[in-house]
Amino acid sequence: MSEPVTTYIRYQTDGKVSYGILEGETIHELNGDIFGSHRRTGKKVPIEKVSILPPTDAQKVIAVGHNFQSHIEGMPTPKEPVLFAKLLTSLIGHDSEVRYFSDTTDLHFEGEMVLVIGKTASNVSLENASNYIFAVAPGNDISERHWQQNDVQWFRGKSSDTFGPVGPVMVRGADYNNLLVQTRVNGKVMQSQSTKDMIFSPEQIVSYVSRYVTLEPGDLIFSGTPGKTSAMLPGDVVEIELEGVGVLRNTIGDKEEPQRLLKAK
Amino acid sequence: MSEPVTTYIRYQTDGKVSYGILEGETIHELNGDIFGSHRRTGKKVPIEKVSILPPTDAQKVIAVGHNFQSHIEGMPTPKEPVLFAKLLTSLIGHDSEVRYFSDTTDLHFEGEMVLVIGKTASNVSLENASNYIFAVAPGNDISERHWQQNDVQWFRGKSSDTFGPVGPVMVRGADYNNLLVQTRVNGKVMQSQSTKDMIFSPEQIVSYVSRYVTLEPGDLIFSGTPGKTSAMLPGDVVEIELEGVGVLRNTIGDKEEPQRLLKAK
Repeated sequence: MSEPVTTYIRYQTDGKVSYGILEGETIHELNGDIFGSHRRTGKKVPIEKVSILPPTDAQKVIAVGHNFQSHIEGMPTPKEPVLFAKLLTSLIGHDSEVRYFSDTTDLHFEGEMVLVIGKTASNVSLENASNYIFAVAPGNDISERHWQQNDVQWFRGKSSDTFGPVGPVMVRGADYNNLLVQTRVNGKVMQSQSTKDMIFSPEQIVSYVSRYVTLEPGDLIFSGTPGKTSAMLPGDVVEIELEGVGVLRNTIGDKEEPQRLLKAK
Repeated sequence: MSEPVTTYIRYQTDGKVSYGILEGETIHELNGDIFGSHRRTGKKVPIEKVSILPPTDAQKVIAVGHNFQSHIEGMPTPKEPVLFAKLLTSLIGHDSEVRYFSDTTDLHFEGEMVLVIGKTASNVSLENASNYIFAVAPGNDISERHWQQNDVQWFRGKSSDTFGPVGPVMVRGADYNNLLVQTRVNGKVMQSQSTKDMIFSPEQIVSYVSRYVTLEPGDLIFSGTPGKTSAMLPGDVVEIELEGVGVLRNTIGDKEEPQRLLKAK
């Protein structure tokens, strides 16, 4: 099956949110259901005139941890996908700032391929799973390692506001079983490995998740990060490039002023 | 401040989803913004004629663990709220069935008070937190203990489909700092303790969460379960009563047939 490669983008202009197809630097506006029947309206917008949003209006965001052997040196290879949730409010788009909270001390990048679900999926077999993967996008599973390691659950370390950059586009028809994921901080390459090395493939992830959780059109699944990660500082520019799909760029914001602390009861 | 007590319900009838005010057995339909300006349309529906839905159209569901000393015997008292996420697809309403998956072996109830957020909340002080709590509802933070204890994160144990019953109503104006939470299985009382014994109060939870995560109108926060929990079986009827608010009743479904298993790569 050789499907044409299509680059979708979700964006805001004049206060209106739209989907479009990106060709070169030009967005061709779409109407209809992005995951069903849709067509070009004929309206074109240059990409530099819009605010780029995360590529879908997701209902939920799921993530896979420990999915590259290169990332889990010394830890056991998981027998089943290691799953956790990210909150919708963690999602930000290309060029948006990542918050550096007043008590942040160890804010890591995690360059990843994000799977975009296109159809409602429950109890999907491994053989059919690819029919439910609409597209893929670059994503950064931002992780505050101190919180992640010291809290009972990864909630604060993974789900805080702005900890889920995704975009700038999602691409349908890409060979997502073999795409290079590359992370750069201030231009220096920090991670670089192909999705072919994932312990659980995109199809295995979708099939497994769908046994327990009904996936819906637009849902996002971060599929795991390769290699080593390290701390970023305010002002750093982090880029995640997914081969043939796009480059997601975000800047780390200034360190925030401390807020009123939680009082003991 | 003595606010009138109002009982809100979200329901479906003739394919249409509405909010209403419940008085006795009669729903008074509302229009407008449930968290802002709304009024009675004049239409009345008997409650037995509708499908009761979870009390809001939430954007996210957050939960607090380890929030009663009676629940964490032998474990350290947390210094900060123990947070985790539940997925939107885990939410079900009153009278809906809880799934008993083919590989479920240890499915526990967790009777809780659920906080319903009424206004966008970011960096909210402890003193102002009550202004952001619109209402409270009974909830059941269903937990598959075997998955919870053996998976790296609580995702599957807490976020699987149907693991988040909430409702049947939400009540504004209740004294949520001192309400009895009672859980009954097939009529037998299993948990019974007041929310005044929570380690972190509703206001402390909202203030703390809002330092890291922007809360939005309709968001739900499960505030923690008291005492001991135990396993339920197919056919069991589980009720969570929140004093002066309502009784949430759900039945455990039949054990499901095994699905095709995940193949090793």
